[in-house]
Order: sequence, then C-alpha cells, then structure tokens
Amino acid sequence: MNTEIKQLLQDVKEGKVSIDDALLQIKKEPFRDLDFAKVDLHRKARQGVAEVIYGAGKTPEQIIKIVLTLQQAGQNTILITRLDEEKANVVACQVKLDYHKDARIGIVGDLPKPNGIGTILIATGGTSDIPVAEEAALTAQVFGNKVTRLYDVGVAGLHRLLSHLDDIMNATVIIAIAGMEGALASVIGGLADCPVIAVPTSVGYGAAFEGLAALLSMLNSCASGVSVVNIDNGFGAGFLASRINHVDKT
Amino acid sequence: MNTEIKQLLQDVKEGKVSIDDALLQIKKEPFRDLDFAKVDLHRKARQGVAEVIYGAGKTPEQIIKIVLTLQQAGQNTILITRLDEEKANVVACQVKLDYHKDARIGIVGDLPKPNGIGTILIATGGTSDIPVAEEAALTAQVFGNKVTRLYDVGVAGLHRLLSHLDDIMNATVIIAIAGMEGALASVIGGLADCPVIAVPTSVGYGAAFEGLAALLSMLNSCASGVSVVNIDNGFGAGFLASRINHVDKT
Amino acid sequence: MNTEIKQLLQDVKEGKVSIDDALLQIKKEPFRDLDFAKVDLHRKARQGVAEVIYGAGKTPEQIIKIVLTLQQAGQNTILITRLDEEKANVVACQVKLDYHKDARIGIVGDLPKPNGIGTILIATGGTSDIPVAEEAALTAQVFGNKVTRLYDVGVAGLHRLLSHLDDIMNATVIIAIAGMEGALASVIGGLADCPVIAVPTSVGYGAAFEGLAALLSMLNSCASGVSVVNIDNGFGAGFLASRINHVDKT
Amino acid sequence: MNTEIKQLLQDVKEGKVSIDDALLQIKKEPFRDLDFAKVDLHRKARQGVAEVIYGAGKTPEQIIKIVLTLQQAGQNTILITRLDEEKANVVACQVKLDYHKDARIGIVGDLPKPNGIGTILIATGGTSDIPVAEEAALTAQVFGNKVTRLYDVGVAGLHRLLSHLDDIMNATVIIAIAGMEGALASVIGGLADCPVIAVPTSVGYGAAFEGLAALLSMLNSCASGVSVVNIDNGFGAGFLASRINHVDKT
Amino acid sequence: MNTEIKQLLQDVKEGKVSIDDALLQIKKEPFRDLDFAKVDLHRKARQGVAEVIYGAGKTPEQIIKIVLTLQQAGQNTILITRLDEEKANVVACQVKLDYHKDARIGIVGDLPKPNGIGTILIATGGTSDIPVAEEAALTAQVFGNKVTRLYDVGVAGLHRLLSHLDDIMNATVIIAIAGMEGALASVIGGLADCPVIAVPTSVGYGAAFEGLAALLSMLNSCASGVSVVNIDNGFGAGFLASRINHVDKT
Amino acid sequence: MNTEIKQLLQDVKEGKVSIDDALLQIKKEPFRDLDFAKVDLHRKARQGVAEVIYGAGKTPEQIIKIVLTLQQAGQNTILITRLDEEKANVVACQVKLDYHKDARIGIVGDLPKPNGIGTILIATGGTSDIPVAEEAALTAQVFGNKVTRLYDVGVAGLHRLLSHLDDIMNATVIIAIAGMEGALASVIGGLADCPVIAVPTSVGYGAAFEGLAALLSMLNSCASGVSVVNIDNGFGAGFLASRINHVDKT
Amino acid sequence: MNTEIKQLLQDVKEGKVSIDDALLQIKKEPFRDLDFAKVDLHRKARQGVAEVIYGAGKTPEQIIKIVLTLQQAGQNTILITRLDEEKANVVACQVKLDYHKDARIGIVGDLPKPNGIGTILIATGGTSDIPVAEEAALTAQVFGNKVTRLYDVGVAGLHRLLSHLDDIMNATVIIAIAGMEGALASVIGGLADCPVIAVPTSVGYGAAFEGLAALLSMLNSCASGVSVVNIDNGFGAGFLASRINHVDKT
Amino acid sequence: MNTEIKQLLQDVKEGKVSIDDALLQIKKEPFRDLDFAKVDLHRKARQGVAEVIYGAGKTPEQIIKIVLTLQQAGQNTILITRLDEEKANVVACQVKLDYHKDARIGIVGDLPKPNGIGTILIATGGTSDIPVAEEAALTAQVFGNKVTRLYDVGVAGLHRLLSHLDDIMNATVIIAIAGMEGALASVIGGLADCPVIAVPTSVGYGAAFEGLAALLSMLNSCASGVSVVNIDNGFGAGFLASRINHVDKT
Repeated sequence: MNTEIKQLLQDVKEGKVSIDDALLQIKKEPFRDLDFAKVDLHRKARQGVAEVIYGAGKTPEQIIKIVLTLQQAGQNTILITRLDEEKANVVACQVKLDYHKDARIGIVGDLPKPNGIGTILIATGGTSDIPVAEEAALTAQVFGNKVTRLYDVGVAGLHRLLSHLDDIMNATVIIAIAGMEGALASVIGGLADCPVIAVPTSVGYGAAFEGLAALLSMLNSCASGVSVVNIDNGFGAGFLASRINHVDKT
Repeated sequence: MNTEIKQLLQDVKEGKVSIDDALLQIKKEPFRDLDFAKVDLHRKARQGVAEVIYGAGKTPEQIIKIVLTLQQAGQNTILITRLDEEKANVVACQVKLDYHKDARIGIVGDLPKPNGIGTILIATGGTSDIPVAEEAALTAQVFGNKVTRLYDVGVAGLHRLLSHLDDIMNATVIIAIAGMEGALASVIGGLADCPVIAVPTSVGYGAAFEGLAALLSMLNSCASGVSVVNIDNGFGAGFLASRINHVDKT
Repeated sequence: MNTEIKQLLQDVKEGKVSIDDALLQIKKEPFRDLDFAKVDLHRKARQGVAEVIYGAGKTPEQIIKIVLTLQQAGQNTILITRLDEEKANVVACQVKLDYHKDARIGIVGDLPKPNGIGTILIATGGTSDIPVAEEAALTAQVFGNKVTRLYDVGVAGLHRLLSHLDDIMNATVIIAIAGMEGALASVIGGLADCPVIAVPTSVGYGAAFEGLAALLSMLNSCASGVSVVNIDNGFGAGFLASRINHVDKT
Repeated sequence: MNTEIKQLLQDVKEGKVSIDDALLQIKKEPFRDLDFAKVDLHRKARQGVAEVIYGAGKTPEQIIKIVLTLQQAGQNTILITRLDEEKANVVACQVKLDYHKDARIGIVGDLPKPNGIGTILIATGGTSDIPVAEEAALTAQVFGNKVTRLYDVGVAGLHRLLSHLDDIMNATVIIAIAGMEGALASVIGGLADCPVIAVPTSVGYGAAFEGLAALLSMLNSCASGVSVVNIDNGFGAGFLASRINHVDKT
Repeated sequence: MNTEIKQLLQDVKEGKVSIDDALLQIKKEPFRDLDFAKVDLHRKARQGVAEVIYGAGKTPEQIIKIVLTLQQAGQNTILITRLDEEKANVVACQVKLDYHKDARIGIVGDLPKPNGIGTILIATGGTSDIPVAEEAALTAQVFGNKVTRLYDVGVAGLHRLLSHLDDIMNATVIIAIAGMEGALASVIGGLADCPVIAVPTSVGYGAAFEGLAALLSMLNSCASGVSVVNIDNGFGAGFLASRINHVDKT
Repeated sequence: MNTEIKQLLQDVKEGKVSIDDALLQIKKEPFRDLDFAKVDLHRKARQGVAEVIYGAGKTPEQIIKIVLTLQQAGQNTILITRLDEEKANVVACQVKLDYHKDARIGIVGDLPKPNGIGTILIATGGTSDIPVAEEAALTAQVFGNKVTRLYDVGVAGLHRLLSHLDDIMNATVIIAIAGMEGALASVIGGLADCPVIAVPTSVGYGAAFEGLAALLSMLNSCASGVSVVNIDNGFGAGFLASRINHVDKT
Repeated sequence: MNTEIKQLLQDVKEGKVSIDDALLQIKKEPFRDLDFAKVDLHRKARQGVAEVIYGAGKTPEQIIKIVLTLQQAGQNTILITRLDEEKANVVACQVKLDYHKDARIGIVGDLPKPNGIGTILIATGGTSDIPVAEEAALTAQVFGNKVTRLYDVGVAGLHRLLSHLDDIMNATVIIAIAGMEGALASVIGGLADCPVIAVPTSVGYGAAFEGLAALLSMLNSCASGVSVVNIDNGFGAGFLASRINHVDKT
Repeated sequence: MNTEIKQLLQDVKEGKVSIDDALLQIKKEPFRDLDFAKVDLHRKARQGVAEVIYGAGKTPEQIIKIVLTLQQAGQNTILITRLDEEKANVVACQVKLDYHKDARIGIVGDLPKPNGIGTILIATGGTSDIPVAEEAALTAQVFGNKVTRLYDVGVAGLHRLLSHLDDIMNATVIIAIAGMEGALASVIGGLADCPVIAVPTSVGYGAAFEGLAALLSMLNSCASGVSVVNIDNGFGAGFLASRINHVDKT
C-alpha cells in the first residue's frame, strides 16, 4: 500500500531525495499549515491521480484559482463536480476543460490509465438516470478505473438486462442506478457475484417522493451484497466503486 | 349480465315463478328490510357462489349464527376471513369447516367450479409471503377461479421466476405478492401481458417500515399494467382478481 | 439443457473449447435460450394498435424521428404522453398530430375501433382532476376501448354521482380519479360490480401533501375490488383498464 | 348565558343568597385555593351538569376519592373516561357506577335532561368504530344532549347511509367516525347542512398507518363544514358537539 | 317500494316491460326517488345569502359569466375565493367587485346583515397568518356573521392575548389561526367556553414542514372543544364557523 | 381576591353593578392583575442593548419607520434579520446600516461591548453552512457577546476540528452548525464541557430531506449536553447562546 | 511537527526506522499528541460530584460492580438511570440505594450541595409527564443544582401556570416538559428571560405519534431562547440544565 | 476466478473426472432440477466455504434437515442466521452447533481459513450495537475473512476511536455500526482510506424512530466512500464486506 509515500521513503533511504525535499513533498497540499495534514496528503498520494473540486457554491474565479494552484502543486487530473454549464464556459476560457454537460462534470488534465483490479459496470434503469450515471462513470474514470456503461436496462424489459449478462458476470464492482421503484438493484444483486452499489435517483413522480421510494426499495433489497448511497449521489458511488476496485492497494 | 336475476324475470314472464315468490327472492338478504337492498342481492347473485364473513372482531357464536342463516338462505359456499385458529376450532364444532391456518381462512361448503375467463397466477417473493398469498388464492377459488400458485420466486434468484415464464404468459390475471423491496411486481409486470395486482406485505425489517417500502416500490413500478392494494391485503387482491377474471360477465 | 452442458464439457475435454470460455458460457447459459425479443413482438402484435412514446425528456426532433420510424414499420396509431404544448407545436409541423393540451397527449394516426369487452368509465371528483382523466381516457381510446367520461362527480355532491348510476352499473372497468380525500374511489367501489382502478391526484393543498392523502385513502378503501396506481398516473390507469377490458384476449 | 351564575347573582341581588354563601359557592371547586379558579367554576357551572375524570393513570382508589369529593360538592353527574373494566369493578364496589365496557366509560349519577338546541347524530363507518362512537355518545349525553346513533353506515354500502337521510337532515351537529379511508366524513359533509365533526379511528391495517390515512382524508374533505379531532378521540368529539349544541347559551 | 317492484314484475309478466329494461330499473331503483337537487336548492335557500365561486383554475371570463348568471338568478352576494390580483382586475372591469388582495377574495354585492347567534372571533398568532385570517373573516361576513378580528396575539407574548380576554369570553365561535408551533389554539381553547376551530398555517420554516408541525400540534390540543381544518384553509374555517353560529337555524 | 369578589357581589346586591357586568368581570378576574407590559419593559431593559426587527414580510419603509422610532426611544443597537439585499439597499438610503449579505442581517448602530461570562464558539461543518453561522454570530455580537468563528471543520476531516481543540475547551457556549448528517454536534458534544446548541441546516440533497436528517441526527446525539433548535435557525441559536452566556445576570 | 517528521525521515535514511514503520507513524501522527484521557479526567474532576451509569442493558451484578469500583475511586455520588424496579431491588441488596421508581433512577451516596448560579425550574404540562420530569430533576440535583418542581401546569388551564409567574421569573434555567401539543414550551418561553430546555414526551395518542407532535411543536416555538432535546430525554435535559447553571465555571 | 469450477473443468480436460461426474457436480445444489441452477452453484463454489440458512420462520426440524442435506452435499461450513436460543437448543441436540446467542447465529462446521485480501474491521458506537456487530463479524468469518472487532468507540468519546487509528488505517474494509445519530460512519469515513459499510441500528429512543435517524445520517455522510445497508442488517454488511475483501477473485 501507499506506494507513493513508500517510494518516497525508499528514495530518502537511498539518498535519491533529500530529507528536505521529501518533507516539502509530504507537506505540499491544501492543509499544508496544519499539523494534521499528512492524512490528506497520504490520501491523495495513494489514489495518486485526482483531486476533486465541488463546483456548487463556488464562483468560476474561485474554481480557476484552485485549479491553477493544484496544477502548480503537480496535480495532473482535476475533477470538478456539480459544475453548471454557465460556470463551465467561464472556467474553460482560462483552463483547458473537458466539460460533460449531462453529468455537470468538468475534467482538467488527462484521464489516468486504469490501474484497478477489474472493471466497474454502471447500469441504469432508464435514460433519465443517465446524468447520475455519468457523474459516477466519469468520477470512476478520473480515479483510474476501467468503466463499462450499461444504460436503460430497467426491469420492465428484463431481456435488455439479461442480454448483457456477460458484463454483469465480469464486473468487479457494479453501480446500479435507478429511480421510481429501484428494482434494478435487487435484480442485478441477484445475478452478480461482486459488490453492488445502489444509487436511488429522484426520477419519477407522485409516490416516488423525490427518490424516497427507490431509496427504501434499495435498502430492503432481498439480494445480498447490495449497499446504498444517497439519492442522486453519482459521485459518491463512483468514488466508492473506485475504492473497492483498488482495495488490494489499501 | 346478471344471469340469475334475468332468469328470475324470465321465469316470472313465463309464469314459472309467481310474482310474490320473485319478490321474496329479490328481498332475501341481509338488508331485507331496506329499500336499497337490491344492490347487494344483485351482487351476490351475479358472483353467484360465495358470501364473505369478516371473522376478526366477531365471536365464534356470531360466526356460526351467520353461517347457519346464510345456509338457510341457500348459500352454498361461505368464506370466513381473518379467522383465528382458536375461533376456528369452536366454529368447527357446529359447522363443517375447511380451515386454512396460514391464510387464517375458513371455508364452509364446496368450492365452486371455476367459471372465469382464464387462470389467476399468484406469485410470492419469499416463503414468508405465503400466508397473504393463500388468503388471495383461497378467496379467488371460493369465487370460482382457477388458481396457479408460484411461491418463493423473488428477484434475488431470477432463474426461479424465469423457469416459470409459461405460467406468467398464460395467466389472465397475476397477483404479485412481496415484502422488502417489492421488486417482484415490476419484474412480473415487465414480463406479463395481463393485469397485475401487486400486494405489498409487511415482511421485512428496519427500513421496510412494515410494508411501506414495498408499497411505494410497487406504486412506482416502471412496468405498465400494475396496480396496488393495501399492505397484506390478500383478500382484496383475490377478490379483485376474480372480478377481472369474470369481467366479461359484468 | 443438460445436453448442452454435457456437450460443453465434452468440448473442454477434447480441447475444442478453452477452460475460460467454458466458464463464461456456463455463467451465461441460464438466460441464453430465452428469446425475449419475441415477447415484445408478441406484445405489440397482440395489443395490435398502438405504440407509446414518453414525450418528457425527448426533443421534438427525437419524437418526430421515432414517429416516422414507427410509421414505416406499419404502426397506425402512436400515442405520445407528457408532451408539452411547445414541443407539440414543433412536432405538428412535420407530423399530422392530434394534440390534447390538458392531457398533454399527442396522437398520431386514427383511433382504432374499440374491440374490448365493454366500456371503460372514467370518473373524476372535481374539474381539476380532468387533465389526469383525459390522459387516462385518451390512452384507453388509443388502445381500442370505448370510454365514457363522468367528470366532476365528487362525493361532496353525491346526487351528481348517483344520477349516473346507470353508467356505473354498465361499466366493465371504472377509473376513479380524485385528489384531496379521494373518497370517490370508495363510494364508486361500493356501487360498482366491476374492477375499479383508483388514481389519486395531486389536487389539493396543505395536508393533501401532493396526493399522499388521496393515495392512502384509496389504498384503504373499505370497498372491495379497488386497486390503486401512482399519483397523477392517468396513463397507467388507462393502460391497465385496457388490459382488463381485453382480458379475454390474453 | 351562564344561567347558574346569573341565577346566583340574581339571588344575591334579591337577597335570597347571602354574599358569603355566594362567595363560597363560587369558590367550591378543585382549584379552590388558586386565584384563577373561577374560570373552572364558571365552566362547570355553565355546562351545569357534569364533571369529567380522566380514568387512565389513576388508581381506583383515587377515582373513588375524587368522585366522593365531587358528590359532596353537589355534583350530580360524573363522567369517568378511559376506565378499564378491572378498575371499574373496583370503583363499582363503593360507588353506584353505570359502566360501559366498549366505550371504557363509567357514569356516576343520572344523565341530565337534554337541554341543547337539537340532536347530535353520531355515525360510524363500521362496527369496529363503535367504541369510539359510544365514548362520543355517552360524553354528549352526560353533557345534556339528545343523541341519535347511526352505526355501520360506511360508504361501501351507500344505501345504508342514504336510507337514513332524514337523520342527517335533522341533526344539529353530526359526528362522523370512521377508520380506513375515512370517506364517511366527506359523504356526510356533502349531505348535511350542519357542522360535522370528523373522528378518524385507528381501525384498519397496513397503509391505514394507525389512523393516519383516515386523518389526512378527513382533513382534506372536499365537503365544507367539516373539522377534525385527534384519532380515536371520541370524548373530544362528544364534548365539542355539546358545545356547538349549546352555542346559544355561551 | 315493494309495490313498485311488484308492479314492475307484473309488467314483466304481462310483457309490458322487457326483461332488460326491468333489470336496469331494478339496479337504478335505490336512488331514484331521492331528489337531490332539492337538497341543494334547500341549502342555498336556507343559508340565503351567498354563493361561492372557487376562483383558482377558472379564467376571468368564466368567473364573470358565473357571476352574471348568479345575479340573474337573484343572488345578492357572491364570494370568489382564491382570486389572484391579475384576474381580479379583469373581473372588476365588468363586475362591481370588492377585492381583498391579502385574502385573495373578491366579493360581489353587499355584505348581508349579520343574523347569527353571536360573534365569531378570529385570532392569529402572527402577522403572517393574516391572509388566512382574512379569508376566514370575509367568508364569515359574507355568510351573515358578525366578526371580531384579533391579530398577532401569539403565545410568545401572552399579555397581548390576555388583554383581550373579553373578546374571547364573549365569542360564540373562535377561529384560532397559527403557524409554527400552533400553540395559540390550545391556549385559547383553555380560556374559551365556546367551540374553537383551529387553522394551522404554512407559516414557518425548517421543521415547520409547511404547516405539519402546527397541524399535529392542534390535533393534539390538550384543551377540549378544539377541532382542526386543513392547513391554510381560511375559507373552510369561516364557513364552518358560520354554520356553528347559525346552528339554531338548521 | 376574595375581597374583590365580595365587593362585586355587594355591588350586585346594591344594584350598583348589573348582573351581566358582574358576570363578565368574574370571567375576566383571573388575569386582571398581571402587568404583562412590565415584563416586556423589564426584558428589553435587562438585555439592555438590542432590539430585533424580523425583516421578512416587511417593506423597507416599514423597517425604516420602526428603526427611527426605536432610535428615538433611545435604542442604540438594532438588529434586522432576514433582510434581503434589495430591501437593505433601500433602508441604507435613510439609515446608517451595516449590512451582511450572507447572513441577510442588517445592523443599525454600534455593536455593544461584550459583557457575557465568556466566549461563544460558532463552528460549522462546511462552507455552505456559513450564512446560518453568520446569522448566529452577528446576533450574538449584537446582544453583547464575544464570538469565535470556526468554520468548515466537518467530521470528514477530523484533523481540522481537532487542531482547534483549545477553542472548544475554552468556550462558554458552543453553537454547532451542520447540514447533511449533522455529526459535528455529536463530535463537539463529546469534546466540550459547556452547553452545545446544535443547528441543523438545510444543506445537502436527496435523503437530507431539507435538513431533516441533520435534525434527527442532532436530537439523537450520543453526547450529553447538546440541545437543538429549528433547521437553519441561526438567530435562535445566537439568541439562546447569549442568554446562556448571560445566565448569571438573570 | 515538522521537526518530528524530519527526524523520522532522517531515521529512515539512516536505516534506524524501517520504511513500513515510518509509513505507519506518518499515518498515526495527527492524533498522537492529544492526551484525550486527560480530557475525561478533567471533565469528571470539574463536575466533581457525580458519575452516571446507564442502567438499561446492564445486569444488576454489572451495575453493583461498577458502583463499587467508582466508590473505591473516591466517587461520592453515583447516578443510575433507566433502572427497572426489579434490578433496583437486586442492587439495593448490596449497595445503599435511593431508588425513585417513577423516574427509574437510583442514586448511591448523598446529593451534593447545590453550587450552581441559580435555580433550575422544571415544569410539566400534565401529571403523565412527571416521570420524565423526575428523571430531569434528580439528574440536576445529583449534579449539584437547586431544583424547583412545577408540575401539571399545562396551557389548557393557563391560570395554573400564571399563578407561578414568580418561579418562572426567578429561574436561571427552565426545563419545560410536555407531550401532546407541547405548547407549554412556547408559553413559558414567552414569559421567561432565561434559557428554556424543551423536552417533548411520548404522552398522548393518535396524531401525537409517540411524541413527534410535541417535538415538532417545540422546534418551531415562536418564543426565542428555547431549544429541544430528544423525546422523553429527562436525563439529557437535567444534564444540560446543570451545565448552563454552572456555565461560569467552565 | 471461479477456482473450483475451473479446477473441475481442468480435471475434465485431463480426464481425471468423467463428464457425467462433472455434470452431476455442477448440478448438485438446491435448485438441482432447474436449468438455471448453475448461477447458484458457481456462487457457492466461488465463495467456496459456506452456505447460509435463514433461521427465522423455519422449525428446528426443518433446519436440521437442511443442515444434514448440505453436509451430505459436501458443505463444510453452514451459517444459520436469526436463530433463537430455543430453536438452537433443539438443533444442537442433533447437529454439532456453535451457537452465538447475542448474534442469534449458529455455525455448523469449522470456520474456514481466511483467504481475503486483508482485514475487515468492525466498529460499533456503543455496547448495544454489539449483537448486530457480531452478526456481521461471524458472517464475515464464516465466509473466510480475518476480522478485527472494535466495539464501543462512539464519537461522544472520540479518544476511544482515535486510539485505534492503526486498526482503521490497516483495514481493507470497515463496517461501522451505530444507532442514535449514527455519526460513527462519517467520522470513520473521514479517517479511513478503504470502503466503509455503514449499518444503522435500531438502538435509541424517541426521535431515533427505530433506526431512521441513524439511517438518514449515514446516507448523508459528508465523508466519501461510505455506503449503507438496512437497519440492523449485520448479515448483509458482513456478506458485502466479504465480497469486497474477495473482490480480486471475482
């Protein structure tokens, strides 16, 4: 585990890196002036590839500034979540930004090469769930995962799902995203052998109660191996899936 | 429609039945002394086969008395729902009772010969849902329906359900009974061509909230052609299924 | 099935199939031989008359494209639900569209001749429930049903309902649509002999909680033979009513 | 208004009662030593006939003691609510008690002669609602009202209700008591010209949620002139009905 | 009734009535002899003074048309509720309209002279509750009641309420209107001798949950004689108060 | 009191007071001798420093008028809460206003010198909670308290919180403000020795249910010494903290 | 901190510390230098008087053992909460126990002399709230506070509360305990000048929803200076009140 | 992956196992006669070590029978969940059973040697959460995982948790179990680098609402990498943790 820090220590041991340079590197992060900062450093270090900016509630100027600071600190890939198109346009004037409107995600820098255990499969019940799915997918990619997308395979047309049984069987982690009655999570949970992360979405109306129906449904999945994140929380699902897909590197 | 009354009127017309006897027959029911009673008569007449006693909150003595009265009125089959075993034992001393403990149902008299359009399929997600399913099944049988039981075919083991695709395809009405996340209704709804009545059950714990999760899930079914009755309402589902299965005789 | 696996094992033994390929095939097997596409063809074939496009979340261009494709495939009648007026205007430029603003429904092609068992009665508690009712009515008509409309017959003025007792008595299926306290479903359920589909609407304010009061009320109907669909789900009710009205053709 | 106090003042004026005796009489009640006590006195005085003991959480001994104290203070009729049968038996050993098991009510002393404006009609949806109805009915009687009981007239059998249209038309106040979907309140509200007090009961199961469904239903009644008290609150309804029936004596 | 059916059967026998016609008539019978229109005439006649138009969801043109029709039918006073200012301006061009913006109420014609038993007191907890209070007050006035307004007397400043004890003591009916915690209803209920109608309002934020907190609070009032109407339902409270204030004229 | 009523009776006897007037006086008596106005004077006097104007629902003109009146009455510091920027601009034209946009607070006059027991620490979980925190902080300052701000110290980065352990240990009262899961209150509650006021915020999405999750979480804090105010109620927390910080001056 | 890591890196370089050990130490660092045990000692030391044992879920034997250990450690007063009578009897055999059945509290040792700023007033709405109140009162006493009890002063009989205005005015902290509609907290909050801790209780039925109505009511108190603890949490209120009453000793 | 099946195929290839024997072995499981059974086989095969019996709703006799069947089928370790002590005693008469009363779990056969990636850490907030934790721990052990238990480390005493930072840092998966406010999940989520499975428990009272507060809290965790299972679902958490800990063997 902790390959980067381990390597750093190795380099120190072998004299390739001076102690002061090592110290600097360990300290080079947002909470640099805090005694407790190492935890954060080591987190970023280990995941190695990406830093996340929560775009909501930040001005484009603030976002640009953070991006530039991170880049100067040697950060290659930067993920900006919950980024409106309007803000994205402003940010894109000063920073090379790969913007995904549906997912409200902006990515600065190149996607890292996948280095996880296997593949993360992302399935949705309907087409309306795709924005949440894309948030999950891009997050996972930014954190170094191979992602397979399997959209609009809701249980009302079971054959659509079953015709992709290979993908389900070959996945290392599955993210099942659905609104309305959220049955997709249970059906996939019954077919899969790997951990399933269920994401209820606010898709639906009436007694869907903004995702509550899907949430309760998923929490009560009769299939084992299913856990749930917050309604519409694509980022959380993608981040957790990446952790599971890198669990051997903890 | 209304074959019995029609026949009665025919008999009056042909002189086979006197007007007074006809009048008597039309009036012979619980609300006999009420001007508005015909509605009830005609209901019983049309369904033709069964009368229902709601056993909860009635003493065994009251139940026996009602049964005897109904029998004297020419009723062949009598369904007693929500009947505790203890009460059933008392009733069985004086009345020939076919008691079903799981379903808490007692039946007096013979089951009528099925005369519906087709078959009612009753499916459950798990074995814990069977009492509700049996309440539905026996109710449907008492009202003259052919019933196929398909229990413990929850979506966590999809193959169990899919191996009975024939039954699903051949049914005229399906009652899908499930607790926990209630996904069974959606999956069956997506496979079937006929009306699906979903019955949420209070099976489950924690965030199942006594059947609420299954209820919301079923109301939000992404499959068309699904409607929902109250939690654990096996009788209601069986009764409605019978109505649908006899819809051509309205 | 046994034969297939036996052959597979034979192939493995003979080196014709690699172990990994066999492994994959064993996992895929259960669902491989189901021709689910057939199910869908069969469904469309049987219902015979209409295809549905869910208009929400689709651009007018997408809708036009789907309509044209369906028409080329020989589809006579096409139902477009949840279609805003603005989109409808765009669609209507290229396609002959019969647009119903209240119901947010567009129909392409002629309504089929009714071929159901009987008549579907659609009743509403108030005038505010009419958009949901029209969604149900037009859906039912598009699927080949004769429809009777009985609007604004809420229980606060019982005589309005009772003066149409004939319609209630003669219906094959009834759709009872009401917001606020949703009592209409119970009252109709007590008068009718046929299946009743209750549709709670989000009409009301305060403790109506966006249709929750009507929903709970309808689920607890003291009248037998009543089932419930999601709040404001006119399409679902119309579709289910059509299934019931064609139940002899399953 | 306030006939008793007015009479007392009249007697003082006419010299029939001495000032000290009048003073004593005004003070003769539970909070005798509190400066603020007159409010209570005057309340009892005006209603003139009854004092209420809430039996739950009191020992039989405490109840007996209070009864005796009240009797010594000249109280003719005493209402004891929420009184278990077991306690009632103990109380009945020392006090002449008219105990109503269903309503869990005990009455000491004679019922006063009705002196209200008109008649209070108490209607229930089913037989399971009768205990709540009897609590309301006996409370109303104890406070000097003429009561008409109309039980088991739920909307599933509308003819039962309609056959008593006279009672509804002639009532001064109506208490409509129902569990499950609580539609009775709306139907009666639509038929009646007088104030309707709706009492939701906890009768029902599943999505009745212990009376919540009936409560919400009644709060959203589409009929004007309906207000609601707490679930199962028969006493509250009876007390309020009495106030309305004596509103000209305020 | 018996005679009627007997005659019918006789007619069938004699061939005067066909079997199908007889069948239909037997089903219609129960409600045939109720002249519900009379009920409504009678209602309007008795209340004598006002007709109500629910303005929401109606165009100004529709409102004007209804007003003119009612005036031609001899209606002196017409109450229009939930009337936006914009619509009111249009209506006012053609009809002499007294518009109350806060209460969203328009009144056509003169207020009738109060003819109720006594006075209706309308109290609010805060100034934000005044629109609901005015809806209640104007409704009550339109139906012929004397109204006293007592606004902004919430329990956080108890002296404001207590300094108007006279008004509370002299009222025949009280309408207590409050949002947030809704304590006003209980405090007034404890002080008053007359029926209290509690109106929860959606005033408040956070855990007020759009009036739910006040609603539950009021339903659980520890003071007897309090009943509750829907959240923000000023009209319903005013209408009910008027009924209570005219209860001797039922 | 006895004497007063005795005198009243004497006056009745002597005809000095009419019976009706006496009756009214007897009902008013209980509350007559409370001088509630004094209470209010005393309150303002003691707190001595600030008067609060609730800005929402008031026009700028009304606010200006109240401010001027208060100033003429000798009020030095005036707090205006829930004040929109737009209104603030208008008010600022006529009154010297210190406006805080985030907190939607305007302050007229100088902040008083802190005179509380110690320091109020205000901590937030995230940056989105800052507006609520500033409302609390400015309120506390206006009421004469020393305030320490500790923002963005949510439990996801525990080191941020722990690095300020001194502030937590030295506080006299702590206001812990957090949305989402609201864990901050429990963690601070476990570290602190002083009263902790928890403020749930509506920050979050999905199952945060507009602050409900944080509210429930805080109410169930496993740490002792924590109490909760309404969602987003920064003013209430600041006001209460001030009361606690001045508790020796009650 | 920098020095420490520098030294660590130096040690790695010199081979004194292995890379894995260094890695571990870097991760542990943040929290290493906090002596959290001290915090606890300090807390117990300062409060000085009492230790609390949560009795629920502990055997009498476990409780006795903990008591003896605490006594040996020099603890004078020990509070045992949620202690059933049965367990208390067993404990009392071996330990001198002052048991309070209502409050389910056992106290070992003498109550300390009050050393707080002033008096804690504990008020309840009804007699059913007394067990919660006693839990609060005894907790406060055990922690060295003077307590005034004011029970059964609910707002339905306002005079009972108002006759103790002195107690309210003189309190340093007030605990307001009420079930049902919980209005007591608001009324006291409006009268008092000191912090008010509101405790909702599960007293009530129906729409009280086990204390939810009172909880929401109290959270929405229109009076400032009120905060809320969990339903029935008498201990929490007593503990917090003690903290406030000792706030000058933080 | 799928070592066992792979080995079987290898054996077939090498002629060590006949095709018929292989076929038999593939079919040897509960759904032996179903074409779709391989999915289940392969699941058991891969996890390799355990079969689960859900004890609730089964008689001891049924359990014994299933155990014996499974043993005959070559199953070494059998996990029985939700097993009451009473049933366990009966089962233990015929089967060598290792019964864990707290966790309501019985284990037949030896625990397998751990073969996962790393260690599963199981942490609880309090001692009352231990039964759920043990259910999770034993489940994980039965499925071949190394488990570290860290009980009673709730956030109210943060030092208890922080003193075990090593365990948190070294874990491959963490199960965080807590009732009440459930803050443990967020705090651990903020400290850990690995996937965190949060289990809300029904521990708590009042506004804990049987685990709802903890559930919502955990769903809204501000820490990334946290997902949630149903309330009290120790088995589900242990099973999922095992899947994650074996994710490289999918």
